[in-house]
Amino acid sequence: MKAVILSIGDEVLNGEVADTNAAWLAERLLELGVEISYHTCVGDVEEHIEQSLRYASRRVNLVVATGGLGPTHDDLTRHAAAKAANAPLELHEESLAAIEERFRRYGRPMPAQNRIQAMIPQDAEVLPNSEGTAPGFIVCIGGAHAAFLPGVPREMKAMFEKSLAPFIAALPIERRAVRVEHLHTFGVPESTANERLGNLMLRGANPLIGLRVSGGGVSIKLLATGPDPASVERVMGPTLEAVRQRFGEAIFGTGADTLELATARLLECHGRTLAIAESCTGGLVGHLLTNVPGISRFLLEDLVTYSNAAKAELLGVPAETIQAVGAVSEEVARAMAEGVRKRAKADIGLSTTGIAGPDGGSAEKPVGLVYIGLATDAGTSVERITLVGGRELIKDRAAKFAFNTLRLHLRKMGDWSKCQT
Amino acid sequence: MKAVILSIGDEVLNGEVADTNAAWLAERLLELGVEISYHTCVGDVEEHIEQSLRYASRRVNLVVATGGLGPTHDDLTRHAAAKAANAPLELHEESLAAIEERFRRYGRPMPAQNRIQAMIPQDAEVLPNSEGTAPGFIVCIGGAHAAFLPGVPREMKAMFEKSLAPFIAALPIERRAVRVEHLHTFGVPESTANERLGNLMLRGANPLIGLRVSGGGVSIKLLATGPDPASVERVMGPTLEAVRQRFGEAIFGTGADTLELATARLLECHGRTLAIAESCTGGLVGHLLTNVPGISRFLLEDLVTYSNAAKAELLGVPAETIQAVGAVSEEVARAMAEGVRKRAKADIGLSTTGIAGPDGGSAEKPVGLVYIGLATDAGTSVERITLVGGRELIKDRAAKFAFNTLRLHLRKMGDWSKCQT
Repeated sequence: MKAVILSIGDEVLNGEVADTNAAWLAERLLELGVEISYHTCVGDVEEHIEQSLRYASRRVNLVVATGGLGPTHDDLTRHAAAKAANAPLELHEESLAAIEERFRRYGRPMPAQNRIQAMIPQDAEVLPNSEGTAPGFIVCIGGAHAAFLPGVPREMKAMFEKSLAPFIAALPIERRAVRVEHLHTFGVPESTANERLGNLMLRGANPLIGLRVSGGGVSIKLLATGPDPASVERVMGPTLEAVRQRFGEAIFGTGADTLELATARLLECHGRTLAIAESCTGGLVGHLLTNVPGISRFLLEDLVTYSNAAKAELLGVPAETIQAVGAVSEEVARAMAEGVRKRAKADIGLSTTGIAGPDGGSAEKPVGLVYIGLATDAGTSVERITLVGGRELIKDRAAKFAFNTLRLHLRKMGDWSKCQT
Repeated sequence: MKAVILSIGDEVLNGEVADTNAAWLAERLLELGVEISYHTCVGDVEEHIEQSLRYASRRVNLVVATGGLGPTHDDLTRHAAAKAANAPLELHEESLAAIEERFRRYGRPMPAQNRIQAMIPQDAEVLPNSEGTAPGFIVCIGGAHAAFLPGVPREMKAMFEKSLAPFIAALPIERRAVRVEHLHTFGVPESTANERLGNLMLRGANPLIGLRVSGGGVSIKLLATGPDPASVERVMGPTLEAVRQRFGEAIFGTGADTLELATARLLECHGRTLAIAESCTGGLVGHLLTNVPGISRFLLEDLVTYSNAAKAELLGVPAETIQAVGAVSEEVARAMAEGVRKRAKADIGLSTTGIAGPDGGSAEKPVGLVYIGLATDAGTSVERITLVGGRELIKDRAAKFAFNTLRLHLRKMGDWSKCQT
C-alpha cells in the first residue's frame, strides 16, 4: 500500500512553520505498513489543492491531507476535496451539533462562519474531532482513499489515532510488517561507515540500511519489512548482528540515545564521579551532560576557565606553562584535567582547550585545534584533534569528542555490557 | 517569478527529520521576491527525483532542490539532475581539488567514493560548498533554472546565501519588491504581544505581521511588499516604528540577533567583564555566551557548581546557608553571584540556581522554580521565576531569563543606544 502526504496552507508553503505534521504522519503510516510515495505542500488555493489530489490519487491508493479545514474564507480544502471527489458538500447534522456543543463548552455561541466546518462531501466517512471544531473526513478520489485532517497538530494526531489508523488497519489490502532499528556511532567518518557496511547496503536489500550524519556521528538505520513480524525478525536479526560486529565499540547507543546519555549511563553503571574543566567548549560539555536527569549524583562541577587567570587560580595550571606553551597545548589540557579532578576530589577529570575561532588561530595552532584531557586513577591521557568548521560547530564537535573519549574509557572498565540498557 | 522547493531523501520522506530546509528556503525565496508554487519531498529513488524535476520545471521557472548530494550509494540527486537536464555528468576538477583539500584539512586522504561528489552535469554552474564536501550546481531543465544544494542545513544555508541568492537576485525577471524585518522580544507573553499589535495585524495588511514564539521570546515578523523599494519603504517605515513604540525595551534585537549576542554587544559597548556561576542551567549560560566570537575579552569564567561542596569551596556560599534555606533559594543565588564576581574580580556576577526536574521538586519548591542573581558595583538583585516544561526547556528558559536580566541591567547603563548595531 502506498500513500501521499499532502500539507495544505500558506503558512507552511511560505515557511512560517516547518511541516512537522508530514514527518509525524510519515512515521505513523510506515508503522502501519504503508509505504510513503512522496509529500507535497500547497497553499490555500482551491485549484492547487484539487490538482494535487487528482495527481496523487492516480499514483497511490491512500492520500492523507492536513490543513485548510478552518472556518475562514481561505480554508478551501473541503471545497477542493468535494470537487476532486465529484461529490457536493452537504451539511452533516451530527458534526454541526458537535461544533455547537464545543462552543457551548467554551461558554460562547457558535459564530455563523463555523457552520461551514460541518459541510462534508456527500457519502464521505466523517472523522470526529475530539480536540477542536473541524471534523475530518475520508472520500474516494479515483481509486484512492483520501483522508482530510485538521492542520493543528494536536487535533490532527488525535484524529489520526482515534479514527484514521483503525480505518487504515482495517483496509483489506496486504500490507507488510515493518521494524526499524537505529544504531548510533561516533568516531567513524561517513565514508568509512559506508565502506564497512558495504554489501549490506545494496539497494533493495532487506533490511534496507541508511546512514545519517548528525552531531559529528553517523547513525545507521535498518528498515526491515516482510509479510509478518516473524519473517521481519528473521531478516532483521542477522543484519543487526552483522552491523554491530562491524562497528563494535563505535556504537554508543540505539533509538533515541545520545552520546551524553550513553556516557552518563556508564558513569552511573560504574559509580564514578566526574569533574570537568572547559575552555574552548565554553560550558557545552556541562550543558549537554546536565540534560540527563539525575546526573547531579555523578557530575560534581564544571569549571569553564576562559581566562588564563582562572586556569591558574582554579585548576592550578602553572602560569609559566601557559607562558611557555600557550593555553591551547597538551600540557595545559593535562594540567586542567588533573587540576579539576584534584580540586573536586572526583574519580575522573575531563578537560577541553582549543581554538574555536573565527580569530585566534596561527600557523602552528590553527582554528579547530583542540586538546582533550582525561585524568583518572590510572593516569592522564591527552587527545589532539583538528576540527573544521565555524565556531559553533567546532565547539559542538569538541564536546562530542570529549564525551566519546570518556565513554570509551568507561567502556573498558570491567563488564560494560551490563551498563547497556 | 515562481519556484518549487524539492526536498530529496528517505530520512525526510519517512519522517525521521522534519523538513526544516523547505521552510527556511521558502522564507528566503519570498524575501528575494520569489513566489512559492509548492514544496514536494521524494525519497532516494532516481526515477522519482527525475520525475519531480521534470514536472516542476514545466510549471515554474525556478526549482530549488536539497539533499542527495552525499558520497553514498543512495545519494542519487546528481544522476537524476543530469538526466532531467539531458547533460552527462562530468568531473569538475576545481571541485575535486576542493574536496581533496578539505580532507587534507581533516588530516586524512579522500576516500575514493567521495570523487563522485565532484561529478557535475555538463555546462552546470557550480556552487562551492564552504561548509562541507559536496558542491551544489545550477542546471537548466526545460525552461527552468534548477539549483541543487546539500541537505545538511548548515551547508545548504551557506551555499544559498553565498551563491544562489546572488544568482536569483541577478535573474532578469520582474519581481515585486519585498522587505522583511524581524524584531525579537523577550519577556512579553504571546497573548500580550497579540493585544499590543492589535490593529496592525489585520489580514491583508501591508506590511503583513506575523508572530513566532521561539526560545521563550516572541519574534515579530513584518513583510512589506510593493512595486518598488521606495513604496515598500513607505509602508514599512511607519509600522516598524509603531511596533518599536509598543514593545520598547522588550525588543532585544533584529534579524539574526540572539539574546546572548545582544547581551554580549552591551558588555562590549560598556566594557564590562562578566563572571558566571551556574547550577540548574548546568553550563548553558556559558555555552550560549561563548557562541559569540570574541567574548573571551569580557567573559572571565563560568563556574558550574553542581555540588554543594563546589558552591561552598569555589564561591564561598556558606554551608550553613545551604543547610538552612537550601541550594535553591534567594540567599544562595545572591551568594553565588557575589561569590563568583569577587573570585574572578569581574565587574558583574551572574548566577542561576533552580530545580530543572524531573525529580527534586517539592510543595514549596516545585520543579521549574529558578532564582537568578545579578551582582554589580551597584549591589545585588535576585529574580525569582517559575517555569513550566521538561528539564531541557526549563534549563533553556532559565538561561534566557538570566541573559535578559543582564541585558536590561546593561541597557540602563548610560547611553545604550550607541550600543545598538
